[in-house]
Amino acid sequence: MQLSTLRTEQGHRAARIDGDHYVLLPCTMRELLANDLWDIAGANDLDGVAFERVGRDTADLAPLVPDPDKIICVGLNYAEHVREMGRELPTHPTYFAKYRGALIGAHDDIVLPNPSISTSIDWEVELAIVIGAPARHVSVDNALEHVAGYTVLNDVSVRDWQTRSVQFLAGKTFEATTPVGPVMTTADVLGDARGLAVRTTVDEVIKQDSSTDELVFGVAELIADLSTVITLEPGDLIATGTPSGVGAGRSPNEWLTPGATMVTSIDGIGEMTNRCTVPSP
Amino acid sequence: MQLSTLRTEQGHRAARIDGDHYVLLPCTMRELLANDLWDIAGANDLDGVAFERVGRDTADLAPLVPDPDKIICVGLNYAEHVREMGRELPTHPTYFAKYRGALIGAHDDIVLPNPSISTSIDWEVELAIVIGAPARHVSVDNALEHVAGYTVLNDVSVRDWQTRSVQFLAGKTFEATTPVGPVMTTADVLGDARGLAVRTTVDEVIKQDSSTDELVFGVAELIADLSTVITLEPGDLIATGTPSGVGAGRSPNEWLTPGATMVTSIDGIGEMTNRCTVPSP
Repeated sequence: MQLSTLRTEQGHRAARIDGDHYVLLPCTMRELLANDLWDIAGANDLDGVAFERVGRDTADLAPLVPDPDKIICVGLNYAEHVREMGRELPTHPTYFAKYRGALIGAHDDIVLPNPSISTSIDWEVELAIVIGAPARHVSVDNALEHVAGYTVLNDVSVRDWQTRSVQFLAGKTFEATTPVGPVMTTADVLGDARGLAVRTTVDEVIKQDSSTDELVFGVAELIADLSTVITLEPGDLIATGTPSGVGAGRSPNEWLTPGATMVTSIDGIGEMTNRCTVPSP
Repeated sequence: MQLSTLRTEQGHRAARIDGDHYVLLPCTMRELLANDLWDIAGANDLDGVAFERVGRDTADLAPLVPDPDKIICVGLNYAEHVREMGRELPTHPTYFAKYRGALIGAHDDIVLPNPSISTSIDWEVELAIVIGAPARHVSVDNALEHVAGYTVLNDVSVRDWQTRSVQFLAGKTFEATTPVGPVMTTADVLGDARGLAVRTTVDEVIKQDSSTDELVFGVAELIADLSTVITLEPGDLIATGTPSGVGAGRSPNEWLTPGATMVTSIDGIGEMTNRCTVPSP
């Protein structure tokens, strides 16, 4: 099953892909996940009242989960990317956060920061885990039971703000710069999400081209480890890290500029297309 | 004015201190801040219906803001603390995050992680800013207009998890380890919160004893800088960093153990008392 979140006149609504249409569900993505509304997610009506259908080409995609309790990002989780950033392979996962205000939809424009703030804006395609059931002190063996599905997250990074202190947060949570979507493919389809091609193109030039087989810490390992620290809640997003090929790893560095179009994609999930624009004066 | 959040049979409720009582307000702290309900905050009734009063000695304190959109922590913001942690004085503020699940009330027990997970648990008293009005691209000169008030936050840290990767997050967001409260003293009383004594005792022995005069980056500077990145929302908490005297800065290191009682306090705000307990088997 593939689910998205659409912007509608009734606010954010979860929706199921059905051919070239979306079936608009009577709940948000967090409500669906928190209350295990999988019967409703798979249905076409409730008590005989048919759910509204929306053409996929006219659907307005919101962030897959617009209001997660937590967005947890994993850094340095592809060996090639660790090397291109000039760091050592970590012995434990590297976690940092992102705030909800950073999230945008899969086809929304990215409004670049004003050039006086930064011009070193970079791409980072990532497999993101969507948590389905609360997870606290779970084992690696049981971790996948807590996964609802997987989506694509582009961890667009403001590199000079990321590295001006020893903590990444500031450069990772600029307002409205992180597309997440277009869909969640459920875990019954993708399992532990190994073996999926992960790609970024900028203006049709391939920049990142890897596979989730290259993840240093896999999905189950990350969930078990994080659940030692805190309860993972339905709707939480865990971005599992980006492969090599980012702009900061290139010589000379390459940065996103106004007018650039990024396409980030993961096999079995889908692709996001985001255009970079200038801030309004 | 001093406000707290109480746990009541109707859920979390904002409350105003009135002598030895709390006046229970008909809203949560976030509702109060987001909707500017300062008339209600100062009142004793609404349309002639008197607000309930609760004795301060029987009040059950929840985290000052139980459900902030963001918790932003500033690291390395007192020069003496930077030195005791063996780091260089930063040129820019160091930001990291904490998730809501970490917050507890001002008198709640801290359930230490199981010793198999960590035994290096440390104290960190901090002045925390409570945001009152949305702030985006604000100047240092205008930043204080966005402050509702100030509270105390004890950024209890799991040091080995904090330093096992290059990012602090994991060691800073263990479930139910961060007391915040007991009250917010409003900004009309405390201004920019300079000149306030900041203290921690563990089992009545003074461990941290400093002043907010020692902050490297002050309240207005932090708000202006953060508002460059993202919109600060009413109820957001910004923990401004801890002074020297933490357990990790001592030789030999000192850690919190079951049975220890911490008192963290800031002049003009109040004090929190938290006992450390063992996890249930």
